[in-house]
Amino acid sequence: MSQALEISGACAQLQQLLGDRFTRTRHARELHGRDEGHLAASLPDAVAFPQSTAEVAAIAGVCARHRVAMVPFGAGTSLEGQVMASRGGVCIDLGVMNAILAVRGEDLDATVQAGVRRQQLNRHLRDQGLFFSVDPGADATFGGMASTRASGTNAVRYGTMRENVLGLTVVLADGRVIHTGGRARKSAAGYDLTHLFVGAEGTLGIITELTMRLHGRAAAMSSAVCGFADLSGAVNTVIETIQLGIPVARIELLDEAMMSAVNAYAGLTHAESPTLFLEFHGTDAGVREQATMVSRIAASHGGGDFRWAAVEEEQRRLWQARHDVAYACKALRPGCEMWPTDVCVPISRLTECILATRQDISSNGLIAPIVGHVGDGNFHVVMVVDVNDEQEMRRAGQFNDRLVRRALSMGGTCSGEHGVGLVKREHLEAEHGEAVAVMRQLKRCLDPDDLMNPGKMFV
Amino acid sequence: MSQALEISGACAQLQQLLGDRFTRTRHARELHGRDEGHLAASLPDAVAFPQSTAEVAAIAGVCARHRVAMVPFGAGTSLEGQVMASRGGVCIDLGVMNAILAVRGEDLDATVQAGVRRQQLNRHLRDQGLFFSVDPGADATFGGMASTRASGTNAVRYGTMRENVLGLTVVLADGRVIHTGGRARKSAAGYDLTHLFVGAEGTLGIITELTMRLHGRAAAMSSAVCGFADLSGAVNTVIETIQLGIPVARIELLDEAMMSAVNAYAGLTHAESPTLFLEFHGTDAGVREQATMVSRIAASHGGGDFRWAAVEEEQRRLWQARHDVAYACKALRPGCEMWPTDVCVPISRLTECILATRQDISSNGLIAPIVGHVGDGNFHVVMVVDVNDEQEMRRAGQFNDRLVRRALSMGGTCSGEHGVGLVKREHLEAEHGEAVAVMRQLKRCLDPDDLMNPGKMFV
Repeated sequence: MSQALEISGACAQLQQLLGDRFTRTRHARELHGRDEGHLAASLPDAVAFPQSTAEVAAIAGVCARHRVAMVPFGAGTSLEGQVMASRGGVCIDLGVMNAILAVRGEDLDATVQAGVRRQQLNRHLRDQGLFFSVDPGADATFGGMASTRASGTNAVRYGTMRENVLGLTVVLADGRVIHTGGRARKSAAGYDLTHLFVGAEGTLGIITELTMRLHGRAAAMSSAVCGFADLSGAVNTVIETIQLGIPVARIELLDEAMMSAVNAYAGLTHAESPTLFLEFHGTDAGVREQATMVSRIAASHGGGDFRWAAVEEEQRRLWQARHDVAYACKALRPGCEMWPTDVCVPISRLTECILATRQDISSNGLIAPIVGHVGDGNFHVVMVVDVNDEQEMRRAGQFNDRLVRRALSMGGTCSGEHGVGLVKREHLEAEHGEAVAVMRQLKRCLDPDDLMNPGKMFV
Repeated sequence: MSQALEISGACAQLQQLLGDRFTRTRHARELHGRDEGHLAASLPDAVAFPQSTAEVAAIAGVCARHRVAMVPFGAGTSLEGQVMASRGGVCIDLGVMNAILAVRGEDLDATVQAGVRRQQLNRHLRDQGLFFSVDPGADATFGGMASTRASGTNAVRYGTMRENVLGLTVVLADGRVIHTGGRARKSAAGYDLTHLFVGAEGTLGIITELTMRLHGRAAAMSSAVCGFADLSGAVNTVIETIQLGIPVARIELLDEAMMSAVNAYAGLTHAESPTLFLEFHGTDAGVREQATMVSRIAASHGGGDFRWAAVEEEQRRLWQARHDVAYACKALRPGCEMWPTDVCVPISRLTECILATRQDISSNGLIAPIVGHVGDGNFHVVMVVDVNDEQEMRRAGQFNDRLVRRALSMGGTCSGEHGVGLVKREHLEAEHGEAVAVMRQLKRCLDPDDLMNPGKMFV
């Protein structure tokens, strides 16, 4: 049967199943046709809004029978094209599935539907002295965060989605529903399916529920910024801090270009030099001790005095500026798009990698501030590009290639946290070689008709 | 072709390949026919001692062509029958592959061959102020520890093999060699194959090299023991400590029966009441602070004074006693075998689970001391059984079933760290249901002829 006929057959059944929670309007399709990266839109043929795991399973069953592609969609904040319907099909928007199903404070875990967003959960937890630690820039959904193996500013202390997801409910390509992992803190029972789906970008199944670790809010918390005479001083401060095992909760680098973008966007007056944003969690004494140690390290690398944000409101403002960097970059060139890319290298190579990258940006005339979760060896280059300027886009693509190859040559990875999507499929091959053949085998095993988010991850 | 013919064909080729590093002597087969659990031996048809990943790949190629089973073997210290050749075939002893390939102190990681043992690596690291944290009771190999997703006493602070393996070299059933993961602290690039092989008990491939996280030795470290009036006081102390987020490095429970076994085995004079073994890592101030907090919690639950082991030699002796519990149990009934089993539950259910289990042991007249990595909600029951007494073995099996079902009913897992092997295959089904069908699919996908450690994990 032709693809068009298959799609209209599937749509008729999905309409019956979901009523007005299924739509083929152009408006809805456009809202689900792109993410926050630089790629032009690719619209799905239809959008479904399931309310339960059972409905997702029913949708998958219909799509499987008609061999129609399924593209899971959370908040649409992916950066490498993960939510784009590059081969059409049905977009499954999990946004309606936004119930916090259980918070078990005594076990430091919670179970949520995949459409719950991170800020929603943290608002819910605030009064209980708990928080969920993973904090990518966007207010993403947990399904999306798990699928892209998201991390963020707290990962250096509290881990990424890899470390914080305990178990999943997943709908497979054939409509089966499985539960992976569990609530025990550790288990040696069976294959680790949880980690197979975390980071699979929806290509192996659709995550509908997650059980995740929570953390207790530290008794004491303090935030500071510290400017440096040069980039290498800032990065070397980070390296020494990590190598000494000082348990910083956050240690983020913004280069001069990024500081200037942030000042302009948020009306702030930070010095426009390479700057570390720091946060310390612990007891009163512990926080003081950590801060003293790091400030000494910073001073020995040309860092200025720590400027402290002592009260919560100041801390919130400080970190809001950090979280808004992507939007601050976009504001640098109105009408242009951002192309944020990221790599991650072993920490001993971080200074070399960032300096070479900064040099590459300058010599190619790109507008591309750098911001990094540098405690993990991870940094972002936020290119701001005119997508209509073919030559500039080519230069940006070539820069991205060089960045990835530089990171790989240093023992790093092509993406620390944004994932592969449509953009880094060749880089995945360059990084993992023969192991990609095994990934493809697993994909064919669980999704023989290539219906789950097809075209992503693999060339 | 008959199985016997296939085996002799494979053996002829392996003999040629490996020379005197291949043997079919009864002595060698007996040394590789059982582990430290309670099951009677199942001998392999032959034993191979490869020296490199390339040789393991060549062995796998030969075995695959002749459809001969491959059983990877490290130190032979598994507890659920993982290394036993229950369907014959070739045992691949990785013990010769014991080179520490690289230690990168500045990145806190190391790369080792699969046959390196944990104490060997820690001796190698001692002068560099670094250590590898995962410490199961036995001096196991890293290949074995990764394959069973081992943990140990430090897991509450530093994680299990799941958290500490960064990347692997794996030989697949068809002889292909892949490299998974990498040295970056985080990556969002591709399926997480590393975690698929960690805990797969050799059923998906043979791990030949591992890159793992190291940790810096804390500036200050102190150890203590604390006796309690009753079991619930001890367990509730643990629960409160974990719920308050106090970063204890170790918090281990030994019940009365275990304390008495340890005293007898090691000639110690600890009080024979439920006892916590504790260790604190941090700065001087941090360690004092943690210890004060935990000792207050203990006092409020009927705990006695902390008895400190301040100097390193005392600390070593204290923890040696903890590490030797399995052997101490075995010494309780000369001529008998130990059947150590373990479960793990969410911490809020730990007191209830341990008390019900203690009751179950008493009312069934089993000799079965309890020891637990209780900070993770994980505890072991070390049954000491007369394997020739059928009735006793049946009672032990029934007890093990009840223990697992109790843990599962509390949201726990059938094994926190010993794994599935031959013994807990039905329990895996009980725990994971439909997800086990997916595990089987993956097994068939990567090992269609069921040659990699066949019979383990799945009924």
